[in-house]
Amino acid sequence: MIKKIDHIAIAVHSIEEALQTYEGALGLELTDVKEVPERGVKAAFLPVGASEIELVEPITADSSIAKFLEKRGEGLHHVCFEVEDIEAALQDLAAKEVQLIDTQPRQGAHGRVAFIHPKSTHGVLMELIEKH
Amino acid sequence: MIKKIDHIAIAVHSIEEALQTYEGALGLELTDVKEVPERGVKAAFLPVGASEIELVEPITADSSIAKFLEKRGEGLHHVCFEVEDIEAALQDLAAKEVQLIDTQPRQGAHGRVAFIHPKSTHGVLMELIEKH
Repeated sequence: MIKKIDHIAIAVHSIEEALQTYEGALGLELTDVKEVPERGVKAAFLPVGASEIELVEPITADSSIAKFLEKRGEGLHHVCFEVEDIEAALQDLAAKEVQLIDTQPRQGAHGRVAFIHPKSTHGVLMELIEKH
Repeated sequence: MIKKIDHIAIAVHSIEEALQTYEGALGLELTDVKEVPERGVKAAFLPVGASEIELVEPITADSSIAKFLEKRGEGLHHVCFEVEDIEAALQDLAAKEVQLIDTQPRQGAHGRVAFIHPKSTHGVLMELIEKH
């Protein structure tokens, strides 16, 4: 069902500051920055191998990223796995009683996505993506 | 400097229980389980694409994983990047004033490894590995 790690998302207060580490010190290359107003975030993408690091900065105070930062501080936020068929994956997970945040996929920036609740994954917020 | 994500480590109370989700529900394949007494952990490896998920369970109460679980609960623990030359990477990071937990690589289960302090990476505990 899972093909690969699509990306790892890191919650940061400021993408600009975080890039000093992720570009400047670690030598990753920034390929894209986009705002996702419906999630209240700005996201920066840095490829690494066949995956990406996604730095996520809140642009609204009530976004889930803003709340995460307030509660836990900066750090690893979620992991996203690429799947072949997102409807089939969600049906399969629901049948296995995995708690889904999104029972239906929704359109994301790079494909159709759905989140799985960390209660069902031993504390890991997971995203699934079916690429365009 | 960084070739790819080698693995993502997830702190869990029980590998056996977590495998019900990671093998049973998500369909990943368990390829290896080993004890690492010097770190006070047992680790289970499940490949995904060119990377792996590492489930990490404490086997001693004073291990850093046991303390992490006590403080933060189960969830994403660290990310490990594969590098070509770990000495060169550590020298380069130190020159850029990145705070290292290990200034010299030490022998791990799958290669020579060193950890970078989350204070220098916006909250992300990072491991570097140079594979055998």
